[in-house]
Amino acid sequence: MKQLKNKTITDVPGFLASGISIGIKEDNKKDLCIIYSKYKATAAAVFTTNKMKAAPLLVDIENIKNYNTQAIVINSGNANSCTGYEGIDNATKMIATAAQCLNLSPSEVLVASTGTLAKQLPMNLIIPGIKTACNNLESGTGFDAAEAILSTDTKIKTIAVEFQIDNMKVTIAGITKGSTMIHPDMGTTLCFIVTDINISKNILQAALKKCIDKSYNMISIDGDTSTNDMAVILANGSSLNKIIASFDESYDTFCEALSFVTTELAKMIVKDGEGATKFIEVEVTNAKTAYDAKVGAKAIVSSNLIKCECFGSSMKWSTIACVLGYSNIEFNENDFDISIMSGENNIKIVEKAQELQFNEEFLNFILSQDCIKILISLNLGKEKATAWGCDLTYDYVKANGYL
Amino acid sequence: MKQLKNKTITDVPGFLASGISIGIKEDNKKDLCIIYSKYKATAAAVFTTNKMKAAPLLVDIENIKNYNTQAIVINSGNANSCTGYEGIDNATKMIATAAQCLNLSPSEVLVASTGTLAKQLPMNLIIPGIKTACNNLESGTGFDAAEAILSTDTKIKTIAVEFQIDNMKVTIAGITKGSTMIHPDMGTTLCFIVTDINISKNILQAALKKCIDKSYNMISIDGDTSTNDMAVILANGSSLNKIIASFDESYDTFCEALSFVTTELAKMIVKDGEGATKFIEVEVTNAKTAYDAKVGAKAIVSSNLIKCECFGSSMKWSTIACVLGYSNIEFNENDFDISIMSGENNIKIVEKAQELQFNEEFLNFILSQDCIKILISLNLGKEKATAWGCDLTYDYVKANGYL
Repeated sequence: MKQLKNKTITDVPGFLASGISIGIKEDNKKDLCIIYSKYKATAAAVFTTNKMKAAPLLVDIENIKNYNTQAIVINSGNANSCTGYEGIDNATKMIATAAQCLNLSPSEVLVASTGTLAKQLPMNLIIPGIKTACNNLESGTGFDAAEAILSTDTKIKTIAVEFQIDNMKVTIAGITKGSTMIHPDMGTTLCFIVTDINISKNILQAALKKCIDKSYNMISIDGDTSTNDMAVILANGSSLNKIIASFDESYDTFCEALSFVTTELAKMIVKDGEGATKFIEVEVTNAKTAYDAKVGAKAIVSSNLIKCECFGSSMKWSTIACVLGYSNIEFNENDFDISIMSGENNIKIVEKAQELQFNEEFLNFILSQDCIKILISLNLGKEKATAWGCDLTYDYVKANGYL
Repeated sequence: MKQLKNKTITDVPGFLASGISIGIKEDNKKDLCIIYSKYKATAAAVFTTNKMKAAPLLVDIENIKNYNTQAIVINSGNANSCTGYEGIDNATKMIATAAQCLNLSPSEVLVASTGTLAKQLPMNLIIPGIKTACNNLESGTGFDAAEAILSTDTKIKTIAVEFQIDNMKVTIAGITKGSTMIHPDMGTTLCFIVTDINISKNILQAALKKCIDKSYNMISIDGDTSTNDMAVILANGSSLNKIIASFDESYDTFCEALSFVTTELAKMIVKDGEGATKFIEVEVTNAKTAYDAKVGAKAIVSSNLIKCECFGSSMKWSTIACVLGYSNIEFNENDFDISIMSGENNIKIVEKAQELQFNEEFLNFILSQDCIKILISLNLGKEKATAWGCDLTYDYVKANGYL
């Protein structure tokens, strides 16, 4: 597998996209995106577990049941969440408009929104906007599409990779947006991945679920789960590999590449987190079960105390021990090791639950870096997991207090 | 039941206390406390659910099994947590020293610590300190005791109430400390309650558990559960009421008074929370089950977004709806009401999940007050619950980043 520099979703064979400005966001920022497959495509998706699901998700949960899904229409600047029946009606109209322009059935189109909550969509802008966007679908506009799904993210987030299955070249590319909220909104995570692989729908769903669980579901900015989060993958089969219809070797090859894509996209979100100044990676190793490793790593990266300590370039190992303690995982309180690293620099501060003698100045140097890794060995088994997060800063409080 | 002004634990018949400075904390701050019952007393306790329990708790969990518990020895300035076998040995020595001075068996004494984690106790100060404190037990020194258990709290936290059972006067008083951490430590909640009621041990434990669940377990400063949290009640029976040995009417009367005591103490902790500028009360009413009401209220008061919004005197009802959505409780996304209040002022902003027209200036006035109440009606049943928290502020980030 190799990563493709400066390539994005429209570099995957058979996919077109457009990203334009229709006036939902201020300052002529791009705010409408269409992703389109020229060929029939299989889709899989995961949606927020939040019961208060935004209108687009309620519509998509039905549409994704269809075997063919060829287009996704996405607006930013307004999340169409907490908008009641009118919101559902508007999401349905977005799909109907795109379907008509693209000569598809409405059940072959998905819809997504991100931005301000509890405001109805400006349909007077959106309906003509969708028509314009459908007429501007091109193969060189993937980066415009990536820009049009952002809310207050500071950077476009995209990745593309290439690998072989049955000696056929397969490409996967994705775009995503993160959780930032300078405007009085709640952030949302959206993730759209396209690939030319030939794969059956249930196997594609299994692959997406597996890869999202290890990537998007292992990041935390602030512990609040949005009403709009969704990740969708479209696979149009144009790579002409023998269809993947079971959990065979080709499935494993595909999952490896897809996992790289979702993990890199998830890490881009964390790095661009609300007010973030530090990227924090937590790896729990030698856990008894995969569950223990996962829950332990996620708990540490989600702790307000850990996040504040990283912001202040300080770190108490007792805070890490405390968080492990309340995370309800199995570990021995008298036997765990903790190391802190950044790049090539590495310092072990705890062994068998006892503080080691270490160079405090060197630890402070490591903690002052932009990327900090906390490594915890539970010395109980062989399972491991990694989680990613960012620090809790004055700017996070400022932005979310709308100050 | 009536609240007793300017009374504390040593105003409960049969209880003595002392609070002195022995040099663990700087600036001669009081840091050692003994609470002692002149008569045999029944004890009940609840301890942190954190698996990484501090040394004193490990010793207490054994000692509390004894039917008689007559004394508690408490130090502040050092939490004796993450201190391994030496820490357990030191906690045992604290108990042994107090037991010897007070002519008790070690199994009749409990121990508690709060302050810095991962440092061994200065036993050279503590052993003579305990002896001095035992020699200074008085009936007028309850406020000194309340002061000696504080870490970086800004205020003493105590309450006393009086009520009748079997025409006998019964008194309950408590002292507590909160979760603040200006020094590089993790905060701890400690709660010590004494009463002269005559009650059996298992019924006392049931009463304490019930009241702590509705009070201490419904507050959130930052979502991090300490290694040292504990609440203990001693009942010495000197009020001479007929012993409460079942869940009868006298039990209900006692629980009502105890619940008032634990709730008021818990609210004092929130009001003195780390960096807090606002006191937030969340009441969920008309829930289908008591569980739904409790989990919903606790989720809202624990949300970083809600906390930041309160700090900034702003409030998006969609954030409240979003938190309810991910809290996993049962509610109808299309039917809930939200009101925001402060004192006599009250504004309904959502009805049947739809935003009402309201005076925005009046809402901003309410949100700018020190105490904000968020009232959510789920319109599904008759159950309700209240939770309390504080806002997330620059000062919280500053203190916990050790900046």
